[in-house]
Amino acid sequence: MSDRYTSFANTTAGRAMVKRLGLPEPVRLRRYRAGDPDIEGTVLVGGAGRLAEPVRKLLREGGASTEGEGPYTGLVFDATGIADSTGLRALYDFFHPVARSLRPCGRVVVLGTPPEECGNPREATAQRALEGFVRSVAKEFGRGTTAQLVYVAPGAEDAVESTLRFLLSPKSAYVSGQVVRVGAADVTAPANWTRPLEGKVALVTGAARGIGEAIARVLARDGAHVVCLDVPAAGQPLSAVANDIKGSALQLDLTSTDAPQRLVEYFSERNGRVDIVVHNAGITRDKTLARMSEDKWDVLMDINLSSQERVNDALLAADLLPSGGRIVAVSSMSGIAGNRGQTNYAASKAGVIGLVQFNAPVLASKGVTINAVAPGFIETQMTAAMPMVVREGGRRMNSMSQGGQPVDVAETIAWFASPGSAGLTGNVVRVCGQSLLGA
Amino acid sequence: MSDRYTSFANTTAGRAMVKRLGLPEPVRLRRYRAGDPDIEGTVLVGGAGRLAEPVRKLLREGGASTEGEGPYTGLVFDATGIADSTGLRALYDFFHPVARSLRPCGRVVVLGTPPEECGNPREATAQRALEGFVRSVAKEFGRGTTAQLVYVAPGAEDAVESTLRFLLSPKSAYVSGQVVRVGAADVTAPANWTRPLEGKVALVTGAARGIGEAIARVLARDGAHVVCLDVPAAGQPLSAVANDIKGSALQLDLTSTDAPQRLVEYFSERNGRVDIVVHNAGITRDKTLARMSEDKWDVLMDINLSSQERVNDALLAADLLPSGGRIVAVSSMSGIAGNRGQTNYAASKAGVIGLVQFNAPVLASKGVTINAVAPGFIETQMTAAMPMVVREGGRRMNSMSQGGQPVDVAETIAWFASPGSAGLTGNVVRVCGQSLLGA
Repeated sequence: MSDRYTSFANTTAGRAMVKRLGLPEPVRLRRYRAGDPDIEGTVLVGGAGRLAEPVRKLLREGGASTEGEGPYTGLVFDATGIADSTGLRALYDFFHPVARSLRPCGRVVVLGTPPEECGNPREATAQRALEGFVRSVAKEFGRGTTAQLVYVAPGAEDAVESTLRFLLSPKSAYVSGQVVRVGAADVTAPANWTRPLEGKVALVTGAARGIGEAIARVLARDGAHVVCLDVPAAGQPLSAVANDIKGSALQLDLTSTDAPQRLVEYFSERNGRVDIVVHNAGITRDKTLARMSEDKWDVLMDINLSSQERVNDALLAADLLPSGGRIVAVSSMSGIAGNRGQTNYAASKAGVIGLVQFNAPVLASKGVTINAVAPGFIETQMTAAMPMVVREGGRRMNSMSQGGQPVDVAETIAWFASPGSAGLTGNVVRVCGQSLLGA
Repeated sequence: MSDRYTSFANTTAGRAMVKRLGLPEPVRLRRYRAGDPDIEGTVLVGGAGRLAEPVRKLLREGGASTEGEGPYTGLVFDATGIADSTGLRALYDFFHPVARSLRPCGRVVVLGTPPEECGNPREATAQRALEGFVRSVAKEFGRGTTAQLVYVAPGAEDAVESTLRFLLSPKSAYVSGQVVRVGAADVTAPANWTRPLEGKVALVTGAARGIGEAIARVLARDGAHVVCLDVPAAGQPLSAVANDIKGSALQLDLTSTDAPQRLVEYFSERNGRVDIVVHNAGITRDKTLARMSEDKWDVLMDINLSSQERVNDALLAADLLPSGGRIVAVSSMSGIAGNRGQTNYAASKAGVIGLVQFNAPVLASKGVTINAVAPGFIETQMTAAMPMVVREGGRRMNSMSQGGQPVDVAETIAWFASPGSAGLTGNVVRVCGQSLLGA
């Protein structure tokens, strides 16, 4: 979808005008092209903790340099050595001199210890403080820079590579100001980081268009065989997507009583399993609560939330999700912050967050992870149809001053889906360019 | 501090003009006056769970009616009986018919079970979904209505009164869209709910002006003897506040090495204890990280975060905080969402959140609670000095379309300080009129 303002603001004349008028300055975000390396250039690694050395090693093996002069593609700071609030000064010491040495669309990653796993309250306090620092850096550095905080559990030092690769690459162009938790896990690194999903079977619901289509395409690019599901009414665009990515099309209404059973039969017969389940299908039925009909509540809640529960439970009961399985659900910023006219939608999407958080420990015993993405303003047909003022407000009110693309959501899901991401479960990551709107 | 737009928008001519131009419509918020009852009028209670009946009883004993025709002063829904996502329909059934029957500055409270204490993932998912619903109601109902979600742990049914009184009263005028957790605790209800702090000794740091002054005044109104602390340079306004509320003035620089020891000596000699500690003292030293001097980092972190740690530890080590003690820290929305030019401030205020969350379990064994408030845009001398555009942006970008008053922060702190609030610990409550800005 087009964003003519961002295009204009990146012409020579546009840049000058935008500066003179004090308008938002959206930069053209660098995005990943198939075959590119995840990491390149120089990523400066600082800090003194249990992660700096292993991270330097994996970055070098991934093809990046970890020292030398700027401009840098990334700045990674290991804050796990910070034991109390006075030690936070190390953040200043590392970032202050290099704050202006990042390339456009640069990357900042701070690595910490999950506060809840710290030995004492003073250490936990300092580790929790990192979040305020990182979110401020993400708002301040500008020019397409992203900044994230990754809490790495003690013992999870080997589980961090897929996350660093994602967060340092152009794949995370529209992910910023996020907090990610990596736990200890037996990680099987992909044989080939450019085709990490080789040999995997994936299901994507709502795959006929928009974000779902982008998810299907990115998972296929990464090597998965993708079963594209959508309602029968979307049969034509669905087939087109499935054919184009050499996947399969499956027409199914998820609200029908026999849908879970039909999915079980489908995967039992065709593949014997499904490795990756992406719950993307969802609808909006906006109305203020006073004007909302019963039906708008019921049908939305069923598609956006209850059907996900039914499908997960059926696939698990039929033993179709093997160890190493991945469930990724699509939540929404509305589910985090609420929204006028969306009591139904926000409840369903907050429920998705609960689904992910409280199924994570249950699924861990089966070797299955479950995570969620929460898109902000993403350029789709849906947002293109918004009134101009609402659309422009949503587009510009984030640290990138622009909307995201469906591919940004898809890349985030592919990161969760990777065999390398066994240490990630129960996470909710916003794909919102660090939207100012929040809870 | 004045907000001339809100005053104007509440005149007859102003109301008409604001409507015609589609401008924000801030209503004049009802605030508490000393001696008023916390709860009055009719508070409709619905839902079927373990809380509806006890809540009806306590509301009636508190002087409210719990059934009858609207307009209502409050709507309370007990959602603890909702066992899965299909059961969420009960929210719609209760709120849809009465969504327009609230008085201006009405109150909505939804009561749930903490998802982490639910018996199974489906129940946890449904309980987590409540948050999206409540935040949407808070954005949608308008006219000064607030809406909150209170998670009441099983067994904490008797610990909820102070929280309901606060959230249903005009004391919470600028608190909306918040999630509060009440745990099981031995609660001693105050003998007199209009003077709940009778006989208590309180310390308020940074009490010479602004929010700190308001805190001192409200705690004194509620019956506490307040020790007002500020730096020697603020000696004169400090004495004026202390005299006015019949408290004590204590000039002390919290960054001095002997400050914790001097506090210990002060309370040992004068009172033998301190029941309520309010960490309000804090500074800003805004600069982008690239331009920030070392000193701006160090002095800010010391005052805003490290000094709180030192004071708590010294008072606890000297056994001056008795069982029933209360610590309340002032965080900030910047600590939650980050802010451009505030890497230092946001880190310190995020650290305060960590301090509260990770000291709560440690202090619980001593019968002491610790909570935080996170103010949004509050009208003070500091905000009055902001450039107009920044000020108006901050003021209007919340569900109340206006800034809060220092007293709104103070009332929230007084709620945490109450003997009735033994079940509240580790909470972070924003006083921000449900600011749109978030994380």
